[in-house]
Amino acid sequence: MAGSVGLVETETVRLFTAAQPLVLVSGATLGPVDVAYETYGRLNADRSNAVFICHALTGDAHAAGWHAGDRHPGWWDNLIGPGRPLDTDRFFVVCANLLGGCQGTTGPSSPHPETGRAYGLDFPLLEVADFVTVHRALLAHLGIERLLAVLGGSLGGMQALQWSLDHPEDLANALIVAASSRLTAQNIAFSAVARRAIMSDRQFRDGQYAAEGTMPAVGLAIARMMAHITYLSEDAFTAKFGRTSQFETRRRGFGIDFAVESYLDHQGTTFLERFDALSYLYLTRVMDYFDPFARPDALAAVEQRPVNHLVLSFDSDWRFSTDHALRITRRLEQARLPVTFREISSAFGHDSFLLADPVYHATLRAFLDRALEVGT
Amino acid sequence: MAGSVGLVETETVRLFTAAQPLVLVSGATLGPVDVAYETYGRLNADRSNAVFICHALTGDAHAAGWHAGDRHPGWWDNLIGPGRPLDTDRFFVVCANLLGGCQGTTGPSSPHPETGRAYGLDFPLLEVADFVTVHRALLAHLGIERLLAVLGGSLGGMQALQWSLDHPEDLANALIVAASSRLTAQNIAFSAVARRAIMSDRQFRDGQYAAEGTMPAVGLAIARMMAHITYLSEDAFTAKFGRTSQFETRRRGFGIDFAVESYLDHQGTTFLERFDALSYLYLTRVMDYFDPFARPDALAAVEQRPVNHLVLSFDSDWRFSTDHALRITRRLEQARLPVTFREISSAFGHDSFLLADPVYHATLRAFLDRALEVGT
Repeated sequence: MAGSVGLVETETVRLFTAAQPLVLVSGATLGPVDVAYETYGRLNADRSNAVFICHALTGDAHAAGWHAGDRHPGWWDNLIGPGRPLDTDRFFVVCANLLGGCQGTTGPSSPHPETGRAYGLDFPLLEVADFVTVHRALLAHLGIERLLAVLGGSLGGMQALQWSLDHPEDLANALIVAASSRLTAQNIAFSAVARRAIMSDRQFRDGQYAAEGTMPAVGLAIARMMAHITYLSEDAFTAKFGRTSQFETRRRGFGIDFAVESYLDHQGTTFLERFDALSYLYLTRVMDYFDPFARPDALAAVEQRPVNHLVLSFDSDWRFSTDHALRITRRLEQARLPVTFREISSAFGHDSFLLADPVYHATLRAFLDRALEVGT
Repeated sequence: MAGSVGLVETETVRLFTAAQPLVLVSGATLGPVDVAYETYGRLNADRSNAVFICHALTGDAHAAGWHAGDRHPGWWDNLIGPGRPLDTDRFFVVCANLLGGCQGTTGPSSPHPETGRAYGLDFPLLEVADFVTVHRALLAHLGIERLLAVLGGSLGGMQALQWSLDHPEDLANALIVAASSRLTAQNIAFSAVARRAIMSDRQFRDGQYAAEGTMPAVGLAIARMMAHITYLSEDAFTAKFGRTSQFETRRRGFGIDFAVESYLDHQGTTFLERFDALSYLYLTRVMDYFDPFARPDALAAVEQRPVNHLVLSFDSDWRFSTDHALRITRRLEQARLPVTFREISSAFGHDSFLLADPVYHATLRAFLDRALEVGT
């Protein structure tokens, strides 16, 4: 029977220092860089069962199991554990907080080594390839030379794709779920409005809010509320909330009345406890600029060293619709790479990638089981 | 050849006074109530050629022609004029700024008669039926007993529907375009976030910003930017902007770079010149609560005195999709009312109702010409 990985803790490791800094795609350098990560299961003797999980925009290293005192398990706990599709009796799973994040890995609200104040907007702009660089450094630290697979949803899927394109020698399989190789103008528009809300909050203080003992809570909550609208399908909103009031009788006015208003308010409020406004700016901007196939030689490396790909989309996902997945699939196919595409039927929109839809999980399970059989 | 109605002016009339106030559906009273309106064309001798235009959320009385100094004509100028579908050589067209609006008709930023300060949040909550009450008072003032047609898009279409249900004796035809009889949870969610942005702007000052010489510009611009995303289809955004930069070379960072960001910024900024934050709150909330068919006897009046309906939707409109139009159509059909439904193919989403798509305009023209033949 499928079970939990149980109690886990986040580790932190310094992977780059001021003397040996991280060199970003832009040419900028960054150091020190600490990385928070978790692992589940055990690395086998020939180090051939490692799967790297890349998290999405607001995820963190805590993908599975329970921290002491948790009210909820890790964000992908339904997928990872004994007997689960990412079976920790067989796979060794690694998940790290993203560079630029705010849950243990160095990001724009980390202290600048020279001033002791938060980097703020002095933090360098990042690219998805920079995330991959840091992930690779973590693997080196863990003594893993080659991954059985890299797996991610949304921004996580972008990392899996970039990794496959840039360093195919690192991986046998890449699982790209509910992702995009190129945001649309509408995708960018939503993030632009979110950033506007954050940056025009007077508590943003040019990114130095932490030093001034405040945070742009209003703007960050608005950003999160708006984003949540795009994470669910319209039908899911209707099924979950319809037009019912949150209360026994209607409270007409400009406060919360409809249940959907209460839901969004809750999403906005709880987000403030766990996420940082600067990280939101930096990571959404990484997504806007992501366009790996724009590079003429994008597929040259992986053509030489083929990686096996699984590309999944959800039919009700209107943030990254099946069109996005098909674009990725076609580009990989043009390079004659092994690529399996599946559109999963699910009512829940973009958020489906976090849910335990049986067909979705069966598809991941089958692909991962086969990967383990074939090996690295 | 189709032409402009030329130079026009907005008239204002006091339709209700403190002594003889407007009685709202809620039971609250409001007076004085001034109404700003425009007319185009001439009322014929038997007063049988009048068409009332109901405007959408951020529209106003200036539907056609030019004000002195205008850079753009009225918002529905492509539809209204000599030889245009609403041919002002044959039709007499009336358009009034909505109750609760901010372009000449009494609204929440109008002075409270007792304090001289803006009503602010003391302005009563409104319903679509209240708009209709005011429109009817304007018609009485103009000496029009019966309309050939009422026509509106989006919130305007809601008014046309409500008018037909509540006072079918007033009209021979109702044209309901890109509208809804019942917002979805997702529709409400977008408006809820917009209102949050406005009300949490510290310049909102509990709605008394005008008295304090300020306005919630940040919040209102965010609301408008977000709304604009929902007014265009994703394909229209892609076709209009794609991923191109607004500049000759990319300006990576958190300012404007992508053309779509510049567009939204412009929409947000120009909106501040012409719209009021309190009106935005009040009118969006009217839409949230609109649900005319929820009343068990909703169709009783119009069943006794049938009105001829045209219900139009646009296939790329994801704000009020064709599902909304079909729901209206089915309810009217259940009451055995004459109703023509058309889904117009258009790439431009909800905004299509403002554009001069040839099939759309031909459909309106044919319906209106037929209406004129049959008469009131």
